[in-house]
Amino acid sequence: MRFVSYLRDGAVRHGRLDDDTTIAELGDGDLQRLVEQGLPPGTEATARVGVGEVTLLAPLQRPGKLLAAAANYQDHVTETGGEPLDKSRLSPRLFLKPPTSIVGPGAVIPLPDISHEVDWEAELAVVIGTAARNVSVADALGHVAGYMAANDVSARSVDYGFERDTDDKAVWFFDWLAGKWCDGFAPLGPWLLSADEAGDPQAIPIRLDLNGVTRQHGSTKDMIFSVAELIAHASRLMTLEPGDVILTGTPSGVGAATGEYLKPGDELLVDLGPLGTLRNTVA
Amino acid sequence: MRFVSYLRDGAVRHGRLDDDTTIAELGDGDLQRLVEQGLPPGTEATARVGVGEVTLLAPLQRPGKLLAAAANYQDHVTETGGEPLDKSRLSPRLFLKPPTSIVGPGAVIPLPDISHEVDWEAELAVVIGTAARNVSVADALGHVAGYMAANDVSARSVDYGFERDTDDKAVWFFDWLAGKWCDGFAPLGPWLLSADEAGDPQAIPIRLDLNGVTRQHGSTKDMIFSVAELIAHASRLMTLEPGDVILTGTPSGVGAATGEYLKPGDELLVDLGPLGTLRNTVA
Repeated sequence: MRFVSYLRDGAVRHGRLDDDTTIAELGDGDLQRLVEQGLPPGTEATARVGVGEVTLLAPLQRPGKLLAAAANYQDHVTETGGEPLDKSRLSPRLFLKPPTSIVGPGAVIPLPDISHEVDWEAELAVVIGTAARNVSVADALGHVAGYMAANDVSARSVDYGFERDTDDKAVWFFDWLAGKWCDGFAPLGPWLLSADEAGDPQAIPIRLDLNGVTRQHGSTKDMIFSVAELIAHASRLMTLEPGDVILTGTPSGVGAATGEYLKPGDELLVDLGPLGTLRNTVA
Repeated sequence: MRFVSYLRDGAVRHGRLDDDTTIAELGDGDLQRLVEQGLPPGTEATARVGVGEVTLLAPLQRPGKLLAAAANYQDHVTETGGEPLDKSRLSPRLFLKPPTSIVGPGAVIPLPDISHEVDWEAELAVVIGTAARNVSVADALGHVAGYMAANDVSARSVDYGFERDTDDKAVWFFDWLAGKWCDGFAPLGPWLLSADEAGDPQAIPIRLDLNGVTRQHGSTKDMIFSVAELIAHASRLMTLEPGDVILTGTPSGVGAATGEYLKPGDELLVDLGPLGTLRNTVA
């Protein structure tokens, strides 16, 4: 089933998509509560509303954790100048994005004044359904509520307006990290597809179009660390909670590979097949 | 005024400390709502309860953002092998910790199985009171609700049980980051002191005792970037929201300087003068 969060009459509500045009409204607030309840399939609708009558929001507005994996597709690592990674000697590279980075389908992504190199990264987002601590790879997918399309928007460099020692690796790294945090840098949606209907999370197509031209065209089958491996790893570090979101890395085709970055007016389209199409405009 | 969150009769509540032994109960949930309302001083108490009858919790259980500054005291940078930092060519080094790292006064900090080098860092925590986006250093403190004592517990190395290429700077950095995230790695409290009573945030003593022996003894006057500078910088990256927390770095005296790390049974005491004493046990 496909679940959505949206704004109707000035209030955040959530519901189930009956078809492409009708929402069975299930309650107030975003999907957090429903995810904690295990996305019960039989919940009775309190109303039926047309998709066109509401403003869709990110399915989860304020997850406890918005984790993301860096360098999780070999072809993305090499396109940005890195050496191919040897998975046998590597662990997943996770970082956190703040909830203020989250926006929904149709939202505007404002270019921050601290960077002229803002880039796109189409990604599969995983939503945790049940608490996970030290879970095995074999058990990991049992803790997933569902999946969403996502864009891990990233400032490849930051400029604070004065000269810094950018040869310092620490400066480089903290800049890289901060470049992931700006407002609007985590579009999510348009819906949350329940895990039971999503099938194999390693067989989902990923496409990103910029102004109608396809720039990323990959598949989750090419992840270095699978969804299950990312969850198992993260759960060794800390407790994953219902509603936590994990972005799983991006395939090749980002702007940094060619030096082309986002500019005002750009139209971004992220399509993950059964997870729907996430459109955003840059301003 | 001093505000607390606590557990009473199985429910989270918040209140104002009338004196060292009595809480004027103000409502359900933690202090988030009250911070959003600007910590109104005249709120009428719904009950009066003894501090001894409740379990104090972290004043804020689930801030939208738990930011922290790395390398923000010169003497801490040099004690761990770094060169003195030239502030004129530097920007603050911020990272995020997850809400699952937050625990309150008296809570147990569990040693994770992924590290044998878990360390302490006594710090001043700043709580944002009003939304801040691109604020100047001069205006920054006007966005502060209050201050808390904090411990930025940190695993200095992680061991996932197999050999990795730890000469790789990226491996080192992502390990460093993950070492900040474990459950229990952000003790906060015992109370939130409102900004109007805290006075100059750059004149607060910081002390940490391990098993009764003072290990850190500094003052917030020695920060490289002041509280106002950290807020102004963070607000250039993203919108700071009411209830967001910023840990502001630690002075010298951490375990990494001598190679002594936390072990089960250790007693940690963080004292920040007017912000109170935060005690935790390691298990």
